[in-house]
Amino acid sequence: MIKNSAQLVGNGLDDVSRRLRMDACSVLEAALTAVDPEQAIFNALKLENDVLNFEGGSVKLSDVNRVLVVGGGKAGGLMARAIEKLLGDRIDTGLVNVLEGTENAVNLKKIKLHGANHPVPSGSGVKGVKQMLELTEGLCEDDLVISLISGGGSALMPYPAEGIGLDDLQSITGSLLRAGATINELNAVRKHLSAFKGGQLARHCAPARVVSLILSDVIGDPLDIIASGPTAPDTSSFSDALAVLERYGLWDDAPKNIKTRIKGGIEGEIPDTPKEDDPLFKRVHNILTANNVIAASAAREKAAELGYNSMVLSTYIEGEARSVGMILTGISKEINKRDQPLKKPAALIIGGETTVTVKGEGVGGRNMEVALGASMKLGGFPCLVAALGTDGIDGPTESAGAFVDRYTLKRSNEKGLEPEQYLDENDSYHFFKELGDCIMTGPTGTNVNDLSLILIR
Amino acid sequence: MIKNSAQLVGNGLDDVSRRLRMDACSVLEAALTAVDPEQAIFNALKLENDVLNFEGGSVKLSDVNRVLVVGGGKAGGLMARAIEKLLGDRIDTGLVNVLEGTENAVNLKKIKLHGANHPVPSGSGVKGVKQMLELTEGLCEDDLVISLISGGGSALMPYPAEGIGLDDLQSITGSLLRAGATINELNAVRKHLSAFKGGQLARHCAPARVVSLILSDVIGDPLDIIASGPTAPDTSSFSDALAVLERYGLWDDAPKNIKTRIKGGIEGEIPDTPKEDDPLFKRVHNILTANNVIAASAAREKAAELGYNSMVLSTYIEGEARSVGMILTGISKEINKRDQPLKKPAALIIGGETTVTVKGEGVGGRNMEVALGASMKLGGFPCLVAALGTDGIDGPTESAGAFVDRYTLKRSNEKGLEPEQYLDENDSYHFFKELGDCIMTGPTGTNVNDLSLILIR
Repeated sequence: MIKNSAQLVGNGLDDVSRRLRMDACSVLEAALTAVDPEQAIFNALKLENDVLNFEGGSVKLSDVNRVLVVGGGKAGGLMARAIEKLLGDRIDTGLVNVLEGTENAVNLKKIKLHGANHPVPSGSGVKGVKQMLELTEGLCEDDLVISLISGGGSALMPYPAEGIGLDDLQSITGSLLRAGATINELNAVRKHLSAFKGGQLARHCAPARVVSLILSDVIGDPLDIIASGPTAPDTSSFSDALAVLERYGLWDDAPKNIKTRIKGGIEGEIPDTPKEDDPLFKRVHNILTANNVIAASAAREKAAELGYNSMVLSTYIEGEARSVGMILTGISKEINKRDQPLKKPAALIIGGETTVTVKGEGVGGRNMEVALGASMKLGGFPCLVAALGTDGIDGPTESAGAFVDRYTLKRSNEKGLEPEQYLDENDSYHFFKELGDCIMTGPTGTNVNDLSLILIR
Repeated sequence: MIKNSAQLVGNGLDDVSRRLRMDACSVLEAALTAVDPEQAIFNALKLENDVLNFEGGSVKLSDVNRVLVVGGGKAGGLMARAIEKLLGDRIDTGLVNVLEGTENAVNLKKIKLHGANHPVPSGSGVKGVKQMLELTEGLCEDDLVISLISGGGSALMPYPAEGIGLDDLQSITGSLLRAGATINELNAVRKHLSAFKGGQLARHCAPARVVSLILSDVIGDPLDIIASGPTAPDTSSFSDALAVLERYGLWDDAPKNIKTRIKGGIEGEIPDTPKEDDPLFKRVHNILTANNVIAASAAREKAAELGYNSMVLSTYIEGEARSVGMILTGISKEINKRDQPLKKPAALIIGGETTVTVKGEGVGGRNMEVALGASMKLGGFPCLVAALGTDGIDGPTESAGAFVDRYTLKRSNEKGLEPEQYLDENDSYHFFKELGDCIMTGPTGTNVNDLSLILIR
């Protein structure tokens, strides 16, 4: 899956460093395989003797009337293919919103892939959601809805509530982002201007049974945040939406129809999004098929198989990318010097999503900047740091991440590349491209945030 | 030792949070006790039946002719007191350079404390070193020199080589710092313009036996870097000094006497600093009495004693302070959610020295900024993050660090304090002062960098 692994383990390294790189390739590939959108559905959903089994429940297909597939997100095409492979003609019909231009990337028989736009939602996205709601109109208890949710789903599945225009939604979203609202605050507003998000798809499908398969691109897997949680209980209310707009001074000048809706909601004229205690959720199964934890655990297992003492330090790592890289080298030095927190040979895995505060004019990504930050402080002992975006696309580049080891500084010196200068310019991509140390996977079709790995022998 | 511990565990917290704070106070106090300069000498040096025992050697005092004490650094006074307590009248004489104004802070009988300046070296510092060299002139094999080295020693013990002026030293140091030279580069130059640094004190004392007691304020404890390593083998040469000055474009315009000395050294007219294979080091014992590792280990032991599953993650942590804080919260979330890498109740300790990139106009320190960075991402579970400067002085403040827990955000909201705003202004001190969550130890007399602690129940 790493296309340039032969090149990555060449580059005139010594035997130990070459072995570290080979092992790192195996470990990262195991992680990516575990969170492949198709494989993840096969892992989460098993069809045995006409019974569909999943964590926390099962459905006997012979008791089911109609089977409908809806949803959206960047992994929508591969998730839809997995469901068709699993259920075949048992599916009646379906529609899934995917990135415009990828509608035909996957061959499907029953489920239509509908192109929509990201990150700015479009009328095309609205049209797709409208068709999903029509497909799932008037369902009965014996019907089964399979919902396929993945990252990007919030923008790919817009559906303004009655009286709200797509332009209203776009303008208030833009204002909130500029004002520095958090994702939770943004969602509190968006969900209350939508007729789809915040559990409203689930409510629309009631009393049918809903099996929602969710590929998480959000740290900690909050179900109400991933794709704005169309099948998850909402944790926010109309009053919260009002409070957020007031907090950022956006309420007074908000479009009239937004104010009317939110006021109406607070006064009880418009039903709020469904909450956790709503009985409708008794027939809704939200299932995480893949997330950062699954990727990190698969990485740890593979590293253990290769003979490393292995540990997942955390799957919640946030912070400035270069600092995360420096901290990884700090941990590697402790392992090298005192065999703590792990004995050598050691593998330490972290997951999460870092931030790059862009100041330069270069080209790079979060993961390559983690690696570049790590390169400058690595010790002279046999150690490798790898950083990988699980979507295979690190920043606006063709690279998924990069490797660094004790030869990186020496090799970059020989080529006249100054790591500090590349860091100042946020130009991690060109640094690693020159060295031939980019990890090239191509787009993986999945996204469960980022993984970093330290291997020490 | 934490003067405001009663206040820190008040503040209207629940029982669990109060317990976490009490435990954190105990853990941090255990760490500070272990690296107290006096206690550290008693731990490293044992006098039993007239034999002075230390790691890697021993000296029978009845075989010793004269006992002389020299050295310098911010902990010089306390270290000198410990040696007087241990050896008493067995000491013949001694002189130790300390911060000007603290010469009389400690009562001594045999050793003179001499005031010098920091961070800019002064003539007073030179005068003290000159007296040390006179005291240790013409020693024989049966003499014993005890050298007391601690942080700040490089500036407190200046001694320009023949033909070099203190002003030359000051100006070239300033130019190198402005040009962005690393500490290693700076030291390569400084050692070759000094007649004391880079192992030259040890050479001066030969053939006497030298026991050098070193309190490390440098991550990883490189003996040749701490106080510029007066008793440690030097790893740099005159050629390195030239290369550094050339690298930063400072060679051509360097003062003539500096150029003459370095050229003379390269041409073999002036002896280089002593290197590792120099036989003189067979009679030199460099002993680390305290460092970050000792502090972190003591913290871990105390936490284990209090019932926590405990781990030192690393004592080499560098990186932007607020990012380190965010990473600590990321680790705490993994422990809380999945009991990895440690089962609850858990204590995770990290040591090192972070960096604050100052952009605001506020008042703060590395450790309080770690805590402030952590505060914004802490989960709603019972968890505490503490960050402490072991010298008791975090930035230009009276505070040594700060505590944060799940109530920090709520309590700061109630007081109208916006953590993000305080972070933007690098004003961590005022944030924690308002909350009453500064850790107040007063100056501890030691400095082994910083410690952070996560406790989770």
